[in-house]
Amino acid sequence: MSEVTAIDPADWVCPLPLRETTRIVMGHGGGGILSEELIENLFLRAFGARGPSRDSAVLTVPAGRIAVSTDSYVVQPLFFPGGNIGDLAVNGTINDLAMSGAQPLGLTAGFILEEGLELEVLGRIAQSMGKAADHAGVGIVTGDTKVVGKGSADQLFVNTAGVGVIPAGVDIGPERACVGDDIIVSGAVGEHGVAIMSVRAGIDFGTVVTTDSAPLHRLVAAMLAADAPTGGIHALRDPTRGGLVAAVVEIARAARVGIALDEAAIPVPEAVASACGFLGLDPLQVANEGKLVAFVDPAVTEAVLAAMRARPDGVGAAVIGRVVAEHPGMAVGRTSFGTTRVIERELGEQLPRIC
Amino acid sequence: MSEVTAIDPADWVCPLPLRETTRIVMGHGGGGILSEELIENLFLRAFGARGPSRDSAVLTVPAGRIAVSTDSYVVQPLFFPGGNIGDLAVNGTINDLAMSGAQPLGLTAGFILEEGLELEVLGRIAQSMGKAADHAGVGIVTGDTKVVGKGSADQLFVNTAGVGVIPAGVDIGPERACVGDDIIVSGAVGEHGVAIMSVRAGIDFGTVVTTDSAPLHRLVAAMLAADAPTGGIHALRDPTRGGLVAAVVEIARAARVGIALDEAAIPVPEAVASACGFLGLDPLQVANEGKLVAFVDPAVTEAVLAAMRARPDGVGAAVIGRVVAEHPGMAVGRTSFGTTRVIERELGEQLPRIC
Repeated sequence: MSEVTAIDPADWVCPLPLRETTRIVMGHGGGGILSEELIENLFLRAFGARGPSRDSAVLTVPAGRIAVSTDSYVVQPLFFPGGNIGDLAVNGTINDLAMSGAQPLGLTAGFILEEGLELEVLGRIAQSMGKAADHAGVGIVTGDTKVVGKGSADQLFVNTAGVGVIPAGVDIGPERACVGDDIIVSGAVGEHGVAIMSVRAGIDFGTVVTTDSAPLHRLVAAMLAADAPTGGIHALRDPTRGGLVAAVVEIARAARVGIALDEAAIPVPEAVASACGFLGLDPLQVANEGKLVAFVDPAVTEAVLAAMRARPDGVGAAVIGRVVAEHPGMAVGRTSFGTTRVIERELGEQLPRIC
Repeated sequence: MSEVTAIDPADWVCPLPLRETTRIVMGHGGGGILSEELIENLFLRAFGARGPSRDSAVLTVPAGRIAVSTDSYVVQPLFFPGGNIGDLAVNGTINDLAMSGAQPLGLTAGFILEEGLELEVLGRIAQSMGKAADHAGVGIVTGDTKVVGKGSADQLFVNTAGVGVIPAGVDIGPERACVGDDIIVSGAVGEHGVAIMSVRAGIDFGTVVTTDSAPLHRLVAAMLAADAPTGGIHALRDPTRGGLVAAVVEIARAARVGIALDEAAIPVPEAVASACGFLGLDPLQVANEGKLVAFVDPAVTEAVLAAMRARPDGVGAAVIGRVVAEHPGMAVGRTSFGTTRVIERELGEQLPRIC
C-alpha cells in the first residue's frame, strides 16, 4: 500500500455517479446495492425501524380475529394543505382497520416510484409516514420498492396494507345495521376533498381548508368502551371516496335497509360549503380522511356520543339520520327546506385522485 | 305507463355510454357505482369471493406469530411465457411469507389502473390471480382499485400483501445462517428473468423459456416436516430481483458470514445459459419466481433434500455451497475451471421491471 498515493475523496469523481444522484434511478428498484442503500438510508431511518433484511415481518397475535386491509394512494398533488400522500396512506389504512373495530398491529408500505423523482421529495413523504405511524402507535413493519421509467408512473404511488386485532366480543359489519339505528358522524364533512381541490390548478377559495386526515382507531376504542358490553355499535365506515353518501348507501345495500338523513344536522363547514358551491359539488359526496359514520342502537347513542365528544377527534359528533325500513338500499335526505330528496351516489367520481 | 311506448334496449344509446365501455374509465376508481360494478362483476367473480362490502377482511388466527409481507408488481409486458403479472403477484407474496416458514392465510390485492386499459386484459389478469390463489389454497380476502389518467401509469400495477401463520417452534431468519451450513437451491435458476427478456423487444432465443412462477409454501412445509424437531433449517430466501447472488449475499450480510458457492453445482438450464450468454447477463443474477435457497445444518441436509426431491417443485434441489467464516458478507464462487472469484451483487439491476 505504501506506493499508492491516497486519493482525496473531494477530488474523486465516480465515472457513473449514481450514488451522487439526488433523484431516483432505475437501479433503486433493482434489488441490488442501490436498493439496499435506499432502504437503509432513507426508508428505515424515516420509519424508525431497524433489523436484518427479510422478505416479511413477524408479529405476535392473540388467538382470535384479525382484520386485514389494503389501499393504494395516487393523490395529486403529493403535498396539500395539512398533509401529503404519506400520512394519508398511513391514516387511511389504520382507519380501514378501525372500521372493523380493530386496533392496528402493523402496516406494510409498497412504493412505486417514477425514475427521476427527487430523493428529497421521497424523503419528506417517508418522514411523514414515519411520524404518522409513530403518532398512531403503529409500526411500518415491512415494505417494497419498485421503480418504473420516466413517464410510466406519475411521481410516486404508495400502497399500505395493515393488520389489526379485533377485540373479543366486538362484532361490527355493514350487514349489522338495522331499522331504528341512529346514524352518527364524528365531525365536519368535506374537508379533505376541498383541500385537494384548493391546490389543484391553483384554485383559491379565500379560506384555506386543510385535510382532516387523522387516525381513528383511538376514537373507535373509546366508542367501543362506552358501548360495552351491549354490542350496540352495529356498523362503522370512513366516508372517503364518494363521501358521506357512498358510505351510508353501501351500508344500506349490505343491510337491505333504508337511510333517512337530516341534511340540516350534517356538519358542513362554511368554507367547504362555499367551495363546493363554487365548484358545483355536493359536500356530502366529497371525500373525508379523518371522519367516521356509525350506525348505533338508539339505546347507546347518548353514551357513544358523549364518549366521542370528550375527544378532540370526535368533538363535532352529531346524529345525522336514522335507519328506516322504507326504500332499502337508498338514502333519502330531508332538506333544510323541509322537502325530501333521493340522494344518489355518483356514477363515477366528482374529484379524481383525491386519495 | 300505458301511454309510454316501450323502448327496445337494442335501440337505446346511453348519452354517456360509460357502462358500454370495454375500457377502464376514471370513474372505475371513484368509489361510486362504477367502482362497485367493477368489484362485483369483475374482481369478485375472478377471485371467487362473495360477501358484503367492507373496508377490511376478518381472518381467524391462533395465538402466536404471523408473518406479514407486501410486494408491488410492475412487470412489463403484462403477459409472458408461462404467466402474467397476476399469478406472479399471488405467488410472489405467498413466497415472501413462506420464506419465514409461514403458511399463507390470506392475500390483499391493490390495483392501480391506467385509464383506457382494456377490461378484457384486467379480467384475464384477475382470473389468473383467482386461479393462482385457488391453486395455492389461499383467499384474496380484500382489495382496492385506483384509476389514474392516461399516461400517468403503464397499464396496470398490482400490489399484493399477505398474512401467514408461522407454526410454533419454527424459527427461520437470515441472521440464523451459520458457519458450516449447507446451501441448497430448490431447482434450476434464471428462468423467470429470461422468460421476460424473451418477449421484451421481441428477442427470440430459439427455445422458449417459461417463467418458473410457483407458490413455495407447500415445499417449505415438507422441508420443515423433514427437519422437525431439530430446527436445522436456519434461513430461507426466494431469489427474485438480483437472483441467487443477491439472495445469498443478503443472508451473508445479515448473519455476518461468508458464502462459498460451487458454481458447477448450480443448476442452470442450457436455454438460460445460452440466452444469458447472448445478452451478457450472469444467470446467477437473473430473477427466479418459484425457487428458494435454504441454509441448512449439515446434520439435516440429507433429510431435507430427500423431502424436497420427492416433490415436483423440489425435484431439482441441489447443494450448491457452504457457509464459511472467511470473507463475511461476501460470496466467493469456485468456477468450473477450479479458480475462485468474488461474486458481487449488481449495483442496480440487469433487467428492469421483471416483477
